[in-house]
Amino acid sequence: MKKLVLAYSGGLDTSYCAKYLSKEENFEVHAVSVNTGGFTEIEIQEIEEKALQLGAISYTSIDAIATFYEKVVKYLIFGNVLRNNTYPLSVSAERIVQAIEIVTHARKIGAEYIAHGSTGAGNDQVRFDMIFQIIAPEIEIITPIRDNTLSREAEIAYLQENGVEYSWEKAKYSINKGLWGTSVGGDETLTSHLALPGEAYPSQLEKEISKVLKLTFDKGELVAVDGEKESPVVNIEKLSEIASKYAIGRDIHVGDTIIGIKGRVGFEAAAPLIIIKAHHLLEKHTLSKWQQYQKEQLGNFYGMLLHEGNYLDEVMRNIEAFLTDTQKNVSGDVLVTLHPYRFELNGINSTHDLMNASFGSYGEMNKGWTADDAKGFIKILSNPGKIANHVNKNIE
Amino acid sequence: MKKLVLAYSGGLDTSYCAKYLSKEENFEVHAVSVNTGGFTEIEIQEIEEKALQLGAISYTSIDAIATFYEKVVKYLIFGNVLRNNTYPLSVSAERIVQAIEIVTHARKIGAEYIAHGSTGAGNDQVRFDMIFQIIAPEIEIITPIRDNTLSREAEIAYLQENGVEYSWEKAKYSINKGLWGTSVGGDETLTSHLALPGEAYPSQLEKEISKVLKLTFDKGELVAVDGEKESPVVNIEKLSEIASKYAIGRDIHVGDTIIGIKGRVGFEAAAPLIIIKAHHLLEKHTLSKWQQYQKEQLGNFYGMLLHEGNYLDEVMRNIEAFLTDTQKNVSGDVLVTLHPYRFELNGINSTHDLMNASFGSYGEMNKGWTADDAKGFIKILSNPGKIANHVNKNIE
Amino acid sequence: MKKLVLAYSGGLDTSYCAKYLSKEENFEVHAVSVNTGGFTEIEIQEIEEKALQLGAISYTSIDAIATFYEKVVKYLIFGNVLRNNTYPLSVSAERIVQAIEIVTHARKIGAEYIAHGSTGAGNDQVRFDMIFQIIAPEIEIITPIRDNTLSREAEIAYLQENGVEYSWEKAKYSINKGLWGTSVGGDETLTSHLALPGEAYPSQLEKEISKVLKLTFDKGELVAVDGEKESPVVNIEKLSEIASKYAIGRDIHVGDTIIGIKGRVGFEAAAPLIIIKAHHLLEKHTLSKWQQYQKEQLGNFYGMLLHEGNYLDEVMRNIEAFLTDTQKNVSGDVLVTLHPYRFELNGINSTHDLMNASFGSYGEMNKGWTADDAKGFIKILSNPGKIANHVNKNIE
Amino acid sequence: MKKLVLAYSGGLDTSYCAKYLSKEENFEVHAVSVNTGGFTEIEIQEIEEKALQLGAISYTSIDAIATFYEKVVKYLIFGNVLRNNTYPLSVSAERIVQAIEIVTHARKIGAEYIAHGSTGAGNDQVRFDMIFQIIAPEIEIITPIRDNTLSREAEIAYLQENGVEYSWEKAKYSINKGLWGTSVGGDETLTSHLALPGEAYPSQLEKEISKVLKLTFDKGELVAVDGEKESPVVNIEKLSEIASKYAIGRDIHVGDTIIGIKGRVGFEAAAPLIIIKAHHLLEKHTLSKWQQYQKEQLGNFYGMLLHEGNYLDEVMRNIEAFLTDTQKNVSGDVLVTLHPYRFELNGINSTHDLMNASFGSYGEMNKGWTADDAKGFIKILSNPGKIANHVNKNIE
Repeated sequence: MKKLVLAYSGGLDTSYCAKYLSKEENFEVHAVSVNTGGFTEIEIQEIEEKALQLGAISYTSIDAIATFYEKVVKYLIFGNVLRNNTYPLSVSAERIVQAIEIVTHARKIGAEYIAHGSTGAGNDQVRFDMIFQIIAPEIEIITPIRDNTLSREAEIAYLQENGVEYSWEKAKYSINKGLWGTSVGGDETLTSHLALPGEAYPSQLEKEISKVLKLTFDKGELVAVDGEKESPVVNIEKLSEIASKYAIGRDIHVGDTIIGIKGRVGFEAAAPLIIIKAHHLLEKHTLSKWQQYQKEQLGNFYGMLLHEGNYLDEVMRNIEAFLTDTQKNVSGDVLVTLHPYRFELNGINSTHDLMNASFGSYGEMNKGWTADDAKGFIKILSNPGKIANHVNKNIE
Repeated sequence: MKKLVLAYSGGLDTSYCAKYLSKEENFEVHAVSVNTGGFTEIEIQEIEEKALQLGAISYTSIDAIATFYEKVVKYLIFGNVLRNNTYPLSVSAERIVQAIEIVTHARKIGAEYIAHGSTGAGNDQVRFDMIFQIIAPEIEIITPIRDNTLSREAEIAYLQENGVEYSWEKAKYSINKGLWGTSVGGDETLTSHLALPGEAYPSQLEKEISKVLKLTFDKGELVAVDGEKESPVVNIEKLSEIASKYAIGRDIHVGDTIIGIKGRVGFEAAAPLIIIKAHHLLEKHTLSKWQQYQKEQLGNFYGMLLHEGNYLDEVMRNIEAFLTDTQKNVSGDVLVTLHPYRFELNGINSTHDLMNASFGSYGEMNKGWTADDAKGFIKILSNPGKIANHVNKNIE
Repeated sequence: MKKLVLAYSGGLDTSYCAKYLSKEENFEVHAVSVNTGGFTEIEIQEIEEKALQLGAISYTSIDAIATFYEKVVKYLIFGNVLRNNTYPLSVSAERIVQAIEIVTHARKIGAEYIAHGSTGAGNDQVRFDMIFQIIAPEIEIITPIRDNTLSREAEIAYLQENGVEYSWEKAKYSINKGLWGTSVGGDETLTSHLALPGEAYPSQLEKEISKVLKLTFDKGELVAVDGEKESPVVNIEKLSEIASKYAIGRDIHVGDTIIGIKGRVGFEAAAPLIIIKAHHLLEKHTLSKWQQYQKEQLGNFYGMLLHEGNYLDEVMRNIEAFLTDTQKNVSGDVLVTLHPYRFELNGINSTHDLMNASFGSYGEMNKGWTADDAKGFIKILSNPGKIANHVNKNIE
Repeated sequence: MKKLVLAYSGGLDTSYCAKYLSKEENFEVHAVSVNTGGFTEIEIQEIEEKALQLGAISYTSIDAIATFYEKVVKYLIFGNVLRNNTYPLSVSAERIVQAIEIVTHARKIGAEYIAHGSTGAGNDQVRFDMIFQIIAPEIEIITPIRDNTLSREAEIAYLQENGVEYSWEKAKYSINKGLWGTSVGGDETLTSHLALPGEAYPSQLEKEISKVLKLTFDKGELVAVDGEKESPVVNIEKLSEIASKYAIGRDIHVGDTIIGIKGRVGFEAAAPLIIIKAHHLLEKHTLSKWQQYQKEQLGNFYGMLLHEGNYLDEVMRNIEAFLTDTQKNVSGDVLVTLHPYRFELNGINSTHDLMNASFGSYGEMNKGWTADDAKGFIKILSNPGKIANHVNKNIE
């Protein structure tokens, strides 16, 4: 029998795949879900039950949260990556790690096929397939939803005919949760002009009284929240819990899909936004002007390739080496105030702060040069312009 | 007698210059203030009176708001320029236009000297001097404050000895207002860790009830607010008035000065931030991925050179040509909701919207390709990675 | 009958198409060749005869040399574009213009189909198809060679069976000639380690005595050779004739195809290389440091997108606007010495030369600043490093 | 007595300094020359004698060739750095390493002063002073030539008065030799239009018969010439000796000085040019498209900052980390043919070659996809253009 690993989420599409592939296509279906921060223990248990009921011969839950952080999230923080200046690449970044884990699992159990439930219209199919084809060209990819372009109704009907009696009622908003944020799709995101209503977002305002938080970074990583040291993953989760009570981090991302069309998706990403902005502020105090300039360019580029599923291009490793090297002195505390629906960065404290150098205040530093030095500096800075203006007389 | 144009603001430093240069240095002082959005009619009148009383032989107020918009602000919007992702370059950008206007005036009246009140520690001296030296190398620059490094107290004492009886009491926060935002300095901005208190900002929360605004852009320029057509300058002023009642647009900028040290300055810039974010959103719907990519890089670079006083470098004209060309289709409405202390972008309506193309909805567009097309696309996209992985076996 | 325009070159592949499509597929075949500098009058006449003999109902030769220059070559010069620092994008750039002309012709005669002879392995299919699909989505693309993957032998056999009696003997080296250079493929270019032998190149050494040429540029365009004014196109052709007698401009390009594999192609491009290097030298004398910096980045990017068939992306128009704006002062003479197999740039003469400004020699210019100015300049330039070193003590 | 380290080259300017500082200014002069590849044993001995005769109390020759390679040259190769696409940054790059070595020496002997012989007009003063001020702010910099702006004649007269009887006759061409190339200045380089005559260059044509060389790279470093393994430094020297007999690598660099004026300098750099071009070719075969793209941008930027004396900016370390990471697979042989005055790259052999992958020839690789895959790929690549064209109808 043909061994197949199915990327299984518990949703309608992959449930259809589980049934269809095991029953009609005669595959030995091994369901897998890769947790990058979106599933609770209870949800995983439910997914397992469903998978086995639908005909999967085995179910495995892979905990990839730490891997997700180490391979991707860390660099998104180092690079202050916000796609189109807005979107922390939440869900999209998870696909990469999920795909790699699925291949590892498939090889472990000797599967010759991998199936996923993506359609032919979006980004996820590209992200999954590219990873699969590159690192496991010997494995065949099976995509019933993409190939058969079935409607929801047809899928439900098929499952009911086959005695599967779950309720597949469509939620008004499709929610996709992970360590690095939650995406929200709905009727409004199919238009260009409508905002998502407040109730579409998973977190609702629970706290009204502003609160100051201290985020501690060490070489660019979030090592403590309010002085309590924990792993970066735990700190992200903790910050997420605190900040989402303020309904912080809601926005809509408008972007170019890999497939070449424009798309719109809502998201809620309190922790990612606070961390990136806090980290960026710390960098403004600890990095040189040119470090910031090049980081901006490379960070944007890194985000673009990651978004487009190009994670395995060697240039990504090269940029990661660059980014890691920039973080040597990005250590210190950032003070953040949480307010309902927004946050403020108050300031930072760092022994690497290049602004308030320990050897003297701003005033004293000024003693480092005289008026004549400044005038000499400016005179020489003006040389190219002076010559050009004289030669070309192009400025009136 | 030596004819001198003094860039006069009515403040202590330039008042000292007016007196000192006319009385001690025997200059025929012609005071000038260039209005880039910071002065009201009444303030200009007061400045005039002061100037003449201090010994200036003439006073001229130059209205450069429209010039400021045409030469600088327009391109900051086209380029979505936020220095270090935060600061709309408010006040710093004004210096350029002020310097050019001062030269024009000096030439008109045949002055051989230009004086300004900048110190030797900051950015403004560089911006002023560079423009002066490049376009008017024949004019000598006089800078008593920089040269003599006098204390506030010494300046006040000198003025009092000379019978000038204004109150020069120092405000707790130094405010610098212009069309493109207001800067705020205070004790807190001299530290790295303290935020400015709310009362330091010129605008205070007056409205609590959220309000939706419609901003209309035509080829990248803000041509209407809520459907009322006006010049972009009037629209910026109008938006500023509306939004500042919500206390929107407060932040602190941490940046690298031209002189090579880090500095921190508070600012309030409701209209600039709303306009740039709204304009950027419209671009996400109307520009190609690569247009956005290159605009980001060139916009950042443009902001850096402008910040550093390099406005006259020809590359700035070249980038302006680029930016102007990118705006051909950046037309449409952007819907914004103002809340206390923050705003949201709801969405856009544009005939150039590349997302909701008139010829079909997202679903229909999808009919443009099949599952097999998508699979072929991904297969070929994977070629480089497949080959690299096979050859180098560097991915486990 | 179904009207079809066939991009016809006279070669085996497109000759097969002409016969096959008219005879087997029942198309009314209208053959077209678009001359971007590769065909002589006599060759065009031969192509016409062949086309008609093979069953084409009409044949049209479109002279697109001037269009090719205006739409593409001009910007490759402005941007000093050499793909991977080597290849002037010779032949590849022609495909864009050819595709656009073919669509224009198809629309003129009301054809619903366009056929070309590209295989499924290379770049040309992408360049052709993308243009066709974007500007003429209503026209269907027909590609028998790609679809049927026939061998040369099978094609020849088919033509012979159908009474076509040309000699299709394969040349040892496949040559593709155009205004902007000639590509050369052969057995060696299929390896990574072999150079092409000298005789593979179309031009052979005929002149041994070195010769000095004066190239005159006006706003970046080559307006005269040795003082004789002509259109840029004529000047390129003239320079090509002169320089190819020295066997200048041979090299091998190694690049990434659009399809994701690496490829290698020989080329001979005497005029393009001399013009680009001469133009670049003139720019070093007439542009600011930052203009050169940004031109380099945008020029490379422009070349990449052009190479990949992305000519119609709006960002290309934006970059063209940028490049055109940079050429305002790129006027003057460049002196070049031709030697066997190589050339030297001697120097330039330009009224826009920023080096030998008319107002003074280097020595006098130096009078523009003092030793103290220089020391002040350097002191302030050192500020960021001084602070960073003090704070981080990271330099031993 | 005040201890001073003098950067001493044996030339007129620094000889003047040695005498003047020891005799008139009462310094205890410790002469130092830092060899970055320019001096032979015999020359060093002569320099030593001269220094002591001129009043230096000690002389030290520091061999910094290996350091120069490790700190700078290696990265110039990794980055294929040619300033303005021409100049390997030969001499300019040496100043950085020399300055660092001089500080180390000064600290070792407890000197409080460092003197150098640069004028106030060029780049070297900036490179020297910046390093000194940043890493040794406690040391005072002494620059008699810059401060006193003496003529050659005045310097010679002073030395003769003080009994120094060397011949200081000015060579027609000033030559500055180092590991990474030799610079050549003369009357012609003060003009914009004249080439240097052949005899100005230190190496003259000695070999006329072409010769093939095999250069072996390992992770980007030149580890063997014609199969003989040696350290990269030895290989550079060896290649330099072989290739300079062909008079390869002559050119003139036109660049922007740090001081803001344009300058022109001849150079001879056979080994650097051959190595960089050979290394670049190897990269075209072994790196991904995006690696090459980002390397180009960062390499250019690295060269710019190095040229401008900004070597100590932390961004340089970050870029070095990036560049080092890109070299993991840049290993293999490059075949080069030397001809009189020029060289050709024949090709490469590498187990990391992504073109001739061991698993199949180009033809077989092509089996990796079908005509339909290619068509799907192109169809989807065309999506953005198709939509934009439909919406904006901007393409005729």
